[in-house]
Amino acid sequence: MKKMKFALISFVFALIVIDPIVATADEPPSHIGYGRGGRMQGGSVSERSKEPIQPVPISFDYDTAKVELGKKLFFEPRLSKSGWITCNSCHNLSTGGVDNLPTSIGHKWLFGPINSPTVLNAKFNLAQFWDGRAKDLKEQAKGPIANPMEMASNHELAVEVLQSIPAYVQWFKEVYGGDKITIDNVVDAIAAFEETLTTPNSRFDWWLKEYDDKITDEEKEGYDLFKNNGCIICHNGFGVGGTAFQKFGNAKPYDKDTQTLGRYNVTKEEKDKYVFKVPLLRNIELTAPYFHDASTWSLGDAVKIMAEYQLGVTFSDDETRKIVAFLRTLTGDQPSVLFPILPPSHENTPKPNRN
Amino acid sequence: MKKMKFALISFVFALIVIDPIVATADEPPSHIGYGRGGRMQGGSVSERSKEPIQPVPISFDYDTAKVELGKKLFFEPRLSKSGWITCNSCHNLSTGGVDNLPTSIGHKWLFGPINSPTVLNAKFNLAQFWDGRAKDLKEQAKGPIANPMEMASNHELAVEVLQSIPAYVQWFKEVYGGDKITIDNVVDAIAAFEETLTTPNSRFDWWLKEYDDKITDEEKEGYDLFKNNGCIICHNGFGVGGTAFQKFGNAKPYDKDTQTLGRYNVTKEEKDKYVFKVPLLRNIELTAPYFHDASTWSLGDAVKIMAEYQLGVTFSDDETRKIVAFLRTLTGDQPSVLFPILPPSHENTPKPNRN
Repeated sequence: MKKMKFALISFVFALIVIDPIVATADEPPSHIGYGRGGRMQGGSVSERSKEPIQPVPISFDYDTAKVELGKKLFFEPRLSKSGWITCNSCHNLSTGGVDNLPTSIGHKWLFGPINSPTVLNAKFNLAQFWDGRAKDLKEQAKGPIANPMEMASNHELAVEVLQSIPAYVQWFKEVYGGDKITIDNVVDAIAAFEETLTTPNSRFDWWLKEYDDKITDEEKEGYDLFKNNGCIICHNGFGVGGTAFQKFGNAKPYDKDTQTLGRYNVTKEEKDKYVFKVPLLRNIELTAPYFHDASTWSLGDAVKIMAEYQLGVTFSDDETRKIVAFLRTLTGDQPSVLFPILPPSHENTPKPNRN
Repeated sequence: MKKMKFALISFVFALIVIDPIVATADEPPSHIGYGRGGRMQGGSVSERSKEPIQPVPISFDYDTAKVELGKKLFFEPRLSKSGWITCNSCHNLSTGGVDNLPTSIGHKWLFGPINSPTVLNAKFNLAQFWDGRAKDLKEQAKGPIANPMEMASNHELAVEVLQSIPAYVQWFKEVYGGDKITIDNVVDAIAAFEETLTTPNSRFDWWLKEYDDKITDEEKEGYDLFKNNGCIICHNGFGVGGTAFQKFGNAKPYDKDTQTLGRYNVTKEEKDKYVFKVPLLRNIELTAPYFHDASTWSLGDAVKIMAEYQLGVTFSDDETRKIVAFLRTLTGDQPSVLFPILPPSHENTPKPNRN
């Protein structure tokens, strides 16, 4: 009997190899899966496709080897001067792609000037950083490596470290060709990995696909309040945000932080003072504290502050509760990442420097 | 044709469900796999089973729910005062279970007094820490949480944080019963996860199981030198170390570090000055820098220093090269860990404190 089973398994495996679609359709990438919930079935284009929020796409094309390399680099402490800080240190994939700190801790325990935005769904942003100074994820990734308050390395050193490790030379060669690692290729691979860090299958996305019972009446009322009061004007699209720059203090000057100038840093135009990229609201329940200045840890307070300073309205406690309930439906499947195994340093690898 | 394939697959799946041994014998635990190499087949008890080094067992019993909880805690930054440092910060599973630093970076960028030993295969140690002051992994795990130079929290605060998060209350209840989380249960779960962090299937282990071609002649000569010169007296067993305490400076006083007193700290007996737990040599190529004082980054130098101070012999460059070649055969399958998704803090959760 056992032999027969093995024979049958072999036969079916052969079929799978011949026709991979049988086994792999709708499967997540091998390095990445989805930790929560089932995979959505069906969900044809519907009237809800006209809603101003779009569901996070479930599948997309990507380059497996590049993404795998990017994952290693995302978790690579040797990109930092100390050999201790990684991209994941501030954009922790265990905790919503953030560090849940007011501002991030960096080299020598220095604190950054602004709350770290989440890396999850970051590809849906029109630009990166709060002030949008990086046009894409690739450009963004160059920043922290060389920022003395973050990873405190520099691009030459980071490349020299990787170039000294034979396994990295091989992997870069396989993805980009050539024996020379460049900083552009380093951040290209990191960005490719980050682009896979989306969070589909939130309850709200199921609702958008006509699965009515995926959200409660209260949550639906919260969504209606969110739309009818104008939150949706800024928080829309795939990321429920990230599609525009807006002034913090649209309806009333924001008096809690007058230091951080936002987009003005990029444009030097007076009109861009206190203008920030609208943050994504997906997985917002995971990413406290809130706002660029981390001025509140409470999602309810954040909603009230937005109402006051952006919309010039006051939400009742009941309305706030309903909007918060809606916001919690935006939490999707968190990226399921196999923790990478990194190659050891070579004797020529520059040593970490904690100072 | 497709329908036939599906029918066949369903049939075989049914067989697998009925007789799980067909499909799951020798499979790693679901949360944990083995990243490198194939699974060893065969390998009956042999004359090499009399060698003083034993292969790392491939399978073992464990409590799935407890291990999964322990994994979350191992990666839980909120066990630290800052909300930023985890067990993995110093015992990085990407890099051989260490941080590859001379001494670890802790809260407020303070440096520890001694090189962090690897968590990989740590269960094979007769006691934990270099001075053996913790009798097991459970006792060990209590240390860093409360050490002001490491995670800088305290046991009460760590438990208060976890108790405030409903998902943790539920998980602890499922594993330990009751609604009250205790520090003993916290470290019990962490230790249970750490016990799964073994590295089987090294090339040397295959050789021990009579697969002659898994190591080269040079590597075999290195092993013979390792045995014939007496390295094996201390470095033996499952972990190739970890089975005894020994004085650093057995043959000649070790003059590079006379500050670190080792086991004397525990026993206060003069004979225990400069006595340390013999470190594990498994995966040693991954865990530079070497020795409690991290006095060298070179595995060859480490071998020569051991020869000089412990054995009173001098290895030629050729002998050293061969021994190093042997040591590199001790690298096993690194634990393959699905990066955990952690539950968000509750509004009552004590806030992180970076100061």
